Amino acid sequence: MPVTDPDSAFEGISVLGFDADDTLWHSESYFVVTEERFRALLAPWCAADEVGSRLLDRERENLRVFGYGIKGFTLSMIETAIEASEGAIPSAAIEQIIRWGKEMLSHPVELLPGVRETLESLRPHYRLALITKGDLFHQESKIAESGLADLFESVDVLAEKDAVSYQRAIDSIGVVASEFCMIGNSVRSDVLPIIELGGRAVHIPYQHTWDHEVVAAPTNGEPTPWIELARIGDLPAALRSP
Amino acid sequence: MPVTDPDSAFEGISVLGFDADDTLWHSESYFVVTEERFRALLAPWCAADEVGSRLLDRERENLRVFGYGIKGFTLSMIETAIEASEGAIPSAAIEQIIRWGKEMLSHPVELLPGVRETLESLRPHYRLALITKGDLFHQESKIAESGLADLFESVDVLAEKDAVSYQRAIDSIGVVASEFCMIGNSVRSDVLPIIELGGRAVHIPYQHTWDHEVVAAPTNGEPTPWIELARIGDLPAALRSP
Repeated sequence: MPVTDPDSAFEGISVLGFDADDTLWHSESYFVVTEERFRALLAPWCAADEVGSRLLDRERENLRVFGYGIKGFTLSMIETAIEASEGAIPSAAIEQIIRWGKEMLSHPVELLPGVRETLESLRPHYRLALITKGDLFHQESKIAESGLADLFESVDVLAEKDAVSYQRAIDSIGVVASEFCMIGNSVRSDVLPIIELGGRAVHIPYQHTWDHEVVAAPTNGEPTPWIELARIGDLPAALRSP
Repeated sequence: MPVTDPDSAFEGISVLGFDADDTLWHSESYFVVTEERFRALLAPWCAADEVGSRLLDRERENLRVFGYGIKGFTLSMIETAIEASEGAIPSAAIEQIIRWGKEMLSHPVELLPGVRETLESLRPHYRLALITKGDLFHQESKIAESGLADLFESVDVLAEKDAVSYQRAIDSIGVVASEFCMIGNSVRSDVLPIIELGGRAVHIPYQHTWDHEVVAAPTNGEPTPWIELARIGDLPAALRSP
């Protein structure tokens, strides 16, 4: 979905904002693995597909009270396990679910291919900002562990990635939307709010997308007003390209 | 524990930083109530005191993976319940624990007496900053619900309140430590790191202190280099006072 005129797509950009989970490092794949284990754990009581849809419903309902992140996901799994087993789930299985949550929270940060080289090659030409969402404590732990923190001029963890919170973040960075470009794996969270603010965006899909983040593509036949790339390593060329 | 020379205690202060939980609004008292219920729930299996000490041990051990906040507290209660009952806790009781967690997260914000008036009276004379720690999503929800957000020039939620993260926060506020005064209920989190940075601090104890936040008072006979007040309403007079 390239913009019609790539010539002017990135003219005047001074700040690049990067999402973190599934843009700089793996994240959703750990949720996918845990959910597979969770379905297997509940197999004696509930079909795998039904476990998946119950869990998604429960996560969505809990978002407004838990927000994003693994602790809320873990609590949603426990609730789903009790409901889907009609209370028959043994306490040892609940301990297992909590252990999975801790494993996810303690998982080493695994950078996506090309991330460090790409950031290093862009850094002399742009101000780089990290803008992520979710659990503050876990995000900060991952940022520290990634070894990338020094490449960014600023780091912001937002509770939600909507136009209002992005506006606050780019204000604090000291840039206007028209000079800002956001790069991330989620059309819902990294692209649409920035386009709404008059900024520019690059979508780099990850191998998995959480169902909650899936949005329908525009269907009016217009080209989308953002760039899509297959990998972060393609970013420097795309930013330069006429 | 007043400073020896209150005359000079607040000279040159331009920014006042306020903690939020148990400084502007009630928080710890909800944990105390929930823990009482939790002890009662586990009474068939474990003495109340032992439940309390097991829960505190578990919370402390989990801090490095969960960070602060109610979701981690809820998961620690579930782990403690399973261990203290040797696995006998029924799943309905675990659902009850999760409901308590959600109740705490959804609890209306209850301002402490005098908070709004005090902030309004200080605002013409100082830049006011809100600096809290814990769960980003829950803290932002409470700040929005408190109706106090507009009184603060900046709001920062930190994952941990130590000298390093305070330094980053006051840098982003644009103030030097010697012109900054922090006001809060925790000597460990709101007072000592600021004194270490060369700033000033006002300690306003809350009716409850989480055991993890308790620090021993200095025992070298020196007066403490911070002010202690009984209530936030005493702050304007203390700041003015020779």
